[in-house]
Amino acid sequence: MTAPLHETHPSGPGRALPDTQQGMRRRNLARVMHTVSAEGPLSRAAVASRIGLTRAAVSTLVDELIRTGLLEELGPERPVRVGRGRPGSALAVSERGPAGLGAEIGVDHLAVCAVDLRGRLRARAVRHGSNRGRSPAPVIEELTRLVRRVVAEADEEGLWPAGLAVAVPGLVAGDARTVVRAPNLDWEDIDLGALLPAELPPTVDNEANFGALAELWLGEGTPRDFLHVSAEIGIGAGVVVDGRLLRGTRGFAGELGHVPVRPDGPRCACGGRGCLEQYAGEEAVLRAAGLEPDGDRVGLLAARATDGDENVRRALSDAGEALGVALTGAVNLLDPESVVLGGALAGLAPWLLPSLRSELARRTAGPACPVSVSRLGSEGPLLGAAHSVVRAVLDDPAAVAERDPG
Amino acid sequence: MTAPLHETHPSGPGRALPDTQQGMRRRNLARVMHTVSAEGPLSRAAVASRIGLTRAAVSTLVDELIRTGLLEELGPERPVRVGRGRPGSALAVSERGPAGLGAEIGVDHLAVCAVDLRGRLRARAVRHGSNRGRSPAPVIEELTRLVRRVVAEADEEGLWPAGLAVAVPGLVAGDARTVVRAPNLDWEDIDLGALLPAELPPTVDNEANFGALAELWLGEGTPRDFLHVSAEIGIGAGVVVDGRLLRGTRGFAGELGHVPVRPDGPRCACGGRGCLEQYAGEEAVLRAAGLEPDGDRVGLLAARATDGDENVRRALSDAGEALGVALTGAVNLLDPESVVLGGALAGLAPWLLPSLRSELARRTAGPACPVSVSRLGSEGPLLGAAHSVVRAVLDDPAAVAERDPG
Repeated sequence: MTAPLHETHPSGPGRALPDTQQGMRRRNLARVMHTVSAEGPLSRAAVASRIGLTRAAVSTLVDELIRTGLLEELGPERPVRVGRGRPGSALAVSERGPAGLGAEIGVDHLAVCAVDLRGRLRARAVRHGSNRGRSPAPVIEELTRLVRRVVAEADEEGLWPAGLAVAVPGLVAGDARTVVRAPNLDWEDIDLGALLPAELPPTVDNEANFGALAELWLGEGTPRDFLHVSAEIGIGAGVVVDGRLLRGTRGFAGELGHVPVRPDGPRCACGGRGCLEQYAGEEAVLRAAGLEPDGDRVGLLAARATDGDENVRRALSDAGEALGVALTGAVNLLDPESVVLGGALAGLAPWLLPSLRSELARRTAGPACPVSVSRLGSEGPLLGAAHSVVRAVLDDPAAVAERDPG
Repeated sequence: MTAPLHETHPSGPGRALPDTQQGMRRRNLARVMHTVSAEGPLSRAAVASRIGLTRAAVSTLVDELIRTGLLEELGPERPVRVGRGRPGSALAVSERGPAGLGAEIGVDHLAVCAVDLRGRLRARAVRHGSNRGRSPAPVIEELTRLVRRVVAEADEEGLWPAGLAVAVPGLVAGDARTVVRAPNLDWEDIDLGALLPAELPPTVDNEANFGALAELWLGEGTPRDFLHVSAEIGIGAGVVVDGRLLRGTRGFAGELGHVPVRPDGPRCACGGRGCLEQYAGEEAVLRAAGLEPDGDRVGLLAARATDGDENVRRALSDAGEALGVALTGAVNLLDPESVVLGGALAGLAPWLLPSLRSELARRTAGPACPVSVSRLGSEGPLLGAAHSVVRAVLDDPAAVAERDPG
């Protein structure tokens, strides 16, 4: 019942569609879906001109997509583009039918949402409360209850789950279901696929990866080559190259938190010394600021910094400097078009950015790589997860049509 | 007359082939060429079974490739696979026809070579002598003479140049012809396309990039995700992800030499401080070893280290340590399957590797990323350049057939 998430995970079949008539038809179905999704409502003629196929070829593809409920005709009674001749019947992506389910296992919360093919949030459920050190079974049981609630809500609106994607604060194996290590949950080698309901096999990924994908898909003017830096407790990066997430051999790419900033600095849990996390991780910043809170740590740091607490401001400025050193290395290696601060870092950006930017600038001969702040902030991973399922449907509409429960 | 090098440079048309019958035909021609190239000689039936098309479809494609001289039939008189029934007529990639021309502008030499579609080196010309501080025009004039000599030699064997690729020790613009900055030649904003013969418009790229591609294409057991580290005077890296070179937004990716190793270290020409090049670059190592040679610097370092010169050995060991710190960061960001030392670093590997490996290991909790040494060494960039032209022919055989001068 799950859509193959080949755009977000390399295991999907989308990459290897055979170069045959059948493969061509599937790819062209995807191109029609993407075009209507990005620019619709559109007439059949407009779709044909945009993707460079004949009107007749497009009509055949469109008919199939309408039949399987992925596209709908708005009908001539709803002219969309006034003044461009007769409206014809404009095509739009369906607002019923398959939906993407996203879930997030955070250190301090659980969340689930459903997003329709148009990209609109249609249902959402959240539970606050710490998950640190809890064993996986009861956490996943709670998450499953939230999933069922969201599925029921979506069902009332004519939506059915095309797949479930789960964001976790840790490293995920190549099978896209096993959490190899989530230090802040204290989980190791947990197969989430075995714990979640069998009818909804999940695609599991690191929250920094889903955050980066959310930025790519939902951010305004996001380039196709960028580095998305986020933090919950640790610091992670999503490396996006030509519109694709760079995953690495084991799926462990983006571990910016363990780039050495000072090679002889303090010991880090990763085995290294002087890693970025030792200077800019949440624990390090709280320690430097002399705080020991429980509950909303980022909120506390932001509140204190707003109030002018000099210790907190200095701690955040030092963290920004360390981020600047690590990002100088990353920018030299990857040459991204920009760096985006997301997740918890977005909320602390006013105090991190000045030193971060000046560090990057003083270490660069030409113009420094621009650094911006994500508008999605801590919502990124959850939205990225749900949208990854939606993208998988757009990427291979034929596959989801075969699984339509209706 | 130049083949579009879309596998090595993103400007080529190969990526954007339209998804039509015509595009499908071109891609399937490419699949036949790649299959015969990688596994040939092969019968038509064997090709069909390997690429998953019908025997009839493959025969049509093969006939076209034979007609345009890219494939040849070895004939039944040369059975290739004994014991598998009648030999039929085995197909092989042609050893006449289009060839790839590679050129290298080194700091201390110029070189040109021709490689046939089978990947065999067929002609080669080299001129030794320093190019430091020489103006581009006379250097390119000399290079052009070498090119003409190699083209004449290749012509005698029935080969014609399908393209020219030029490796340079510097940053190259997105147009793949302008050298933005080559500090060790003292060149800035030099359009090599305007200086080379008009009938052979070049594809210009950084030598570290061509070195990495050579490793990908010609190395034994090279994975599809690796980091290739090389040096002539500076230190560069080629980041290969899923068999493709990561280029970055401006084409400047892979600047490992400017990853900060010690943020408060010595000033670097790039504007930074404590960059890897300040510890492991050729100048830094020579300075640390107390040497001021001219001529073959790497050769001198290797000779002294072999003789047991303690200063040289210590300087190289310290350089290896700095490489280990910078590579720890790179490995955490990119999660490659391996790191390969190429270029001049390959010749110094015996003295760099111990400290490099132990630094990587002590900074990694799990098993450290394996580090190996390239067998191509300093030949990598030249071979990578020539092979990039050959690959472009294999990637889009229809394009080169249209330009056949015969």
